[in-house]
Amino acid sequence: MPQISDKGRLMPESPIRKLVPYAEAARAAGKKVYPLNIGQPDIKTPEVAMEAIRNCTAKVIEYSHSAGNISYRKKLCKYYQKIGIDVDENEMLITTGGSEAITFAMLSCMNPGDEVIIPEPFYANYNGFAVSAGVIVKPITSSIENDFALPSIKEFEKIITPKTKAIVICNPNNPTGYLYSKEELNSLRELVLKYDLYLFSDEVYREFCYDGEEHFSAMNLKGIEQNVILMDSVSKRYSECGVRIGAMITKNKEVIKTAMKFAQARLCPPGFGQIAAEASLDTPDDYFTEVYNEYIDRRNFTVNALNKMDGVYSPMPKGAFYTVVKLPIDDADKFAKWLLVDFEYNNETVMVAPATGFYATPGLGKNEVRIAYVLKKEELAKAMIALDEALKVYPGRTI
Amino acid sequence: MPQISDKGRLMPESPIRKLVPYAEAARAAGKKVYPLNIGQPDIKTPEVAMEAIRNCTAKVIEYSHSAGNISYRKKLCKYYQKIGIDVDENEMLITTGGSEAITFAMLSCMNPGDEVIIPEPFYANYNGFAVSAGVIVKPITSSIENDFALPSIKEFEKIITPKTKAIVICNPNNPTGYLYSKEELNSLRELVLKYDLYLFSDEVYREFCYDGEEHFSAMNLKGIEQNVILMDSVSKRYSECGVRIGAMITKNKEVIKTAMKFAQARLCPPGFGQIAAEASLDTPDDYFTEVYNEYIDRRNFTVNALNKMDGVYSPMPKGAFYTVVKLPIDDADKFAKWLLVDFEYNNETVMVAPATGFYATPGLGKNEVRIAYVLKKEELAKAMIALDEALKVYPGRTI
Repeated sequence: MPQISDKGRLMPESPIRKLVPYAEAARAAGKKVYPLNIGQPDIKTPEVAMEAIRNCTAKVIEYSHSAGNISYRKKLCKYYQKIGIDVDENEMLITTGGSEAITFAMLSCMNPGDEVIIPEPFYANYNGFAVSAGVIVKPITSSIENDFALPSIKEFEKIITPKTKAIVICNPNNPTGYLYSKEELNSLRELVLKYDLYLFSDEVYREFCYDGEEHFSAMNLKGIEQNVILMDSVSKRYSECGVRIGAMITKNKEVIKTAMKFAQARLCPPGFGQIAAEASLDTPDDYFTEVYNEYIDRRNFTVNALNKMDGVYSPMPKGAFYTVVKLPIDDADKFAKWLLVDFEYNNETVMVAPATGFYATPGLGKNEVRIAYVLKKEELAKAMIALDEALKVYPGRTI
Repeated sequence: MPQISDKGRLMPESPIRKLVPYAEAARAAGKKVYPLNIGQPDIKTPEVAMEAIRNCTAKVIEYSHSAGNISYRKKLCKYYQKIGIDVDENEMLITTGGSEAITFAMLSCMNPGDEVIIPEPFYANYNGFAVSAGVIVKPITSSIENDFALPSIKEFEKIITPKTKAIVICNPNNPTGYLYSKEELNSLRELVLKYDLYLFSDEVYREFCYDGEEHFSAMNLKGIEQNVILMDSVSKRYSECGVRIGAMITKNKEVIKTAMKFAQARLCPPGFGQIAAEASLDTPDDYFTEVYNEYIDRRNFTVNALNKMDGVYSPMPKGAFYTVVKLPIDDADKFAKWLLVDFEYNNETVMVAPATGFYATPGLGKNEVRIAYVLKKEELAKAMIALDEALKVYPGRTI
């Protein structure tokens, strides 16, 4: 029997999905499980998108252009122009989710063995894309003590080597909810210029910025236009995670030309997804107002509830719909499993994502979990009660 | 400005798509161009698929299971059982097109620098997937003199090295239309056993077998169940190339488990595509009879027309909807471009795929082109007239 590959062995298991079997067992046993572990919002997909799908009159679902339908790309440019990002339809490739955008960026810009610096905790699947591309992730630790602000540029410089080729940021951040300031981005700009690095900027949570804070896109950093690659997705903006439509955007023509070759090999992005995504661009403004109000409410409620619990600390995130929370526990992985297997309060429990999976440095995140506040407030309320009760009786409680 | 990657430089341009700008210019100038270059059938997508899409009542287009919807996988098993392939829903991952199936197979089974043997001419995008995975393609030449039959096992053994990890076959074959016999597959079985190799079998044209010939699946080769990985797609079966739904299927649990980690990183296959693909399983039999009759007609017409042309030879392919044709020309790339730029007959011309792009051995295929007989017979008739006239006046004609 032939062996599997080294990449296959190195490939990390999803920290979010590995608890799924325990959740399934708990549910099968009649327990109510509140899923705070995954960024699957319960917000409705815009009606314009569903209508476009229901009205599809195509006779043959053909391959589209490898870079995505030209009608979608042109309309998408208007969306970007409206939010102050000036790009044209030849500076973007429509991808199969944001996932493919980062894969294309890594394959096009980095050699196997090259290093990419990513502030940790970070979106765990970056690990998987890096393994696929043969790229090494060098983490730089951001800390809950600073509410997960960007580590200082000095810290970055300490780990830069001749192999360093790129920096990845996710802004607003998954998993921390941290929103990078213009100053922080400008300091990255200096660094990128000084060492001639790529800056891969994942901005899929752009629409989720709170408390009047403004999102500043890496695409608007002056003088590093050839270095910046924007990774985007419609998944969260329109609550249509399942359509699998994203985009890789850059002013660097050489990168577009190269990524296009990878895009041609896989033929095209999903056809129906493109129809839904294009129609979603006509989503009325009040949809976003409603969504915004809903999330602000959920965030305030969740973070306040967390901070009222004994020994618990959560920053007040300025973006996305996650927070990384410090808990008085010995081991987040044990705790998350225990919640599903051994605990119940009024026959209810919660599912959380252990933060260990979001750190590349071994041992970090053991007393932190990521919470996605993607449920209705009534449900979040019950989930917070269950979590509070759980912390009172968890055998591995530390303080 | 940072450099692009070595993989980016190595990545081949699609031999099929590089002529597109010339075709666009020809069309813009008012010329009628018959596209015989790409496997985009004009056959209608089954009505059941379009209906399922139009009737979609989901409120939120959520992430699906990373391995694909369980309802789809279960129903898909019945399709395989019906055609004599015995698999269950845990022996498959639903992928984003057949493209992702081969990518997952290579990433899960092969290390960078490992070698995969592929009979050439072969589907050109295998090159791209190999470059992405860092895998080396070792071609083994099949020849138009033998109508592109499988090269002898001795020839395979000559190029097997300690780095050889897998063989890829495409059956029925794209680009040649050759259908491998049970005997040929059994000889591969011996080889795979002897050297403990993986056999990646691309069977996306399974439904397109002619003249009463039967398709024999690599999944039914006895004693190499742990070595075989089936790569499949709904694109051609239901003429829904744009939905981007495929499958990676194997009895090897270790490979499934490994590929699942890559699948989890990219979250899930396209949601609407899965709905269309699941509904397509209810396509009535008469759809396939019609399609079959249509293709048999197109094939007979096209191949006969080609063989009547002076100095032209095409085998009579037993499967798929392509044929690789020998032409009396100096250089297929020059010829294909000349057809679009310099030639017209009654203001019409044809677009063909130079076979050079389907060979990995430099210099091969210079007097061959791939023709996809995916148009209506009336159009094929005009296309054949134009091709015949073109060959009469092409300045690089050799005989």
